[in-house]
Amino acid sequence: MAIIGVLLAGCGVYDGSEIHEAVLTLLALDRAGAEIQCLAPDMPQREVVNHLTGEAAAETRNVLVESARIARGNIKDIREVSAADLDGLIMPGGFGAAKNLSDFALQGAAATVHPEVKRLLRDLVAAGKPVGAICIAPATLTKALADMHPEVTIGADLATASVIEAMGGRHRVCTVDMIHVDEKLRLVTTPAYMLGPGIKEVAVGIDKLVAEVVRLAGS
Amino acid sequence: MAIIGVLLAGCGVYDGSEIHEAVLTLLALDRAGAEIQCLAPDMPQREVVNHLTGEAAAETRNVLVESARIARGNIKDIREVSAADLDGLIMPGGFGAAKNLSDFALQGAAATVHPEVKRLLRDLVAAGKPVGAICIAPATLTKALADMHPEVTIGADLATASVIEAMGGRHRVCTVDMIHVDEKLRLVTTPAYMLGPGIKEVAVGIDKLVAEVVRLAGS
Repeated sequence: MAIIGVLLAGCGVYDGSEIHEAVLTLLALDRAGAEIQCLAPDMPQREVVNHLTGEAAAETRNVLVESARIARGNIKDIREVSAADLDGLIMPGGFGAAKNLSDFALQGAAATVHPEVKRLLRDLVAAGKPVGAICIAPATLTKALADMHPEVTIGADLATASVIEAMGGRHRVCTVDMIHVDEKLRLVTTPAYMLGPGIKEVAVGIDKLVAEVVRLAGS
Repeated sequence: MAIIGVLLAGCGVYDGSEIHEAVLTLLALDRAGAEIQCLAPDMPQREVVNHLTGEAAAETRNVLVESARIARGNIKDIREVSAADLDGLIMPGGFGAAKNLSDFALQGAAATVHPEVKRLLRDLVAAGKPVGAICIAPATLTKALADMHPEVTIGADLATASVIEAMGGRHRVCTVDMIHVDEKLRLVTTPAYMLGPGIKEVAVGIDKLVAEVVRLAGS
């Protein structure tokens, strides 16, 4: 049974992991017979956003602690996880993937990737293990692997795509029901809520992404 | 197109809505072609639980604001929603359904249901509109409708079942892949994470529950 990591970044689209994308990933992995290992960095969130108003809130929350809400408490600090522990990894989207796992949402092409995230992503790729990234997470993935010129999709947003290219990545336009596969680096990406419009459409792309990551993990 | 309310109680299994159950409900409703209206009470959470440690945290969070994380901001205060606005309603589980929507988790048979929750549930039943309740939410539903002797399932937990009976309800044992339907009151219930063991099993019962609520809403 493949062990697939799910790298979370908090709990909520505006300051953490996009909840629907994360849960759809867990559902598809469980249905595929994979063993799931949730993980997240133990760090303060870049910010806390009131999801009712969309405004920043004067609060502090921890990425690992909030991610544990999605994982029902079954989660590890990314520091405790090495590439040898996993057969593949998936990063759901949401602003947390570009605010906490890196600062792409703030710094664009000059982004810095969280060192533990960068370490795990590069070790997985070096070991030939597949990495899936959903929604905006491919931007952080691109920055982590910039010297390898990863080929990814974040959908059809040309501004974001041009920043991905500026970081050294190659962007491919996809619709929400599609995945893009970088065969060389074994990366699988899908636009999800970068395009929407709703959960049932997002599920189509995520189901395909999970199936491909699990297939690559076993081959 | 049926308009189905999804009554949330926060964001996280230990102090709010169980996230997987809530997202699986949204997914099944969207796939069934229903229009979704998320709603929650505007009130402080009974408590905030650190989902990494399971311990109470010295924080205050608002049920409506945290529920908005699951709803991606698209949510209404339950005070603004009447039975006439909906064709049916579904309550996901999680401790929030028994700590915020009522205080069943603390008071047992002596529980009090949040007045707006009680009002909406009773108005829906009086209008012949279906109500679905998942996991522990049937306990709150039972208390709200105690004088009507609702027939529900929370799975096979005999202690909880006996409290449901003590409140005036009638409990029916079900497995996680089953639903129980109270044909007279048009209530649909499923055990979900009261039994588990995992998200794919929970999804089977929730898919059936959603299909039955949507069917009843149109008949």
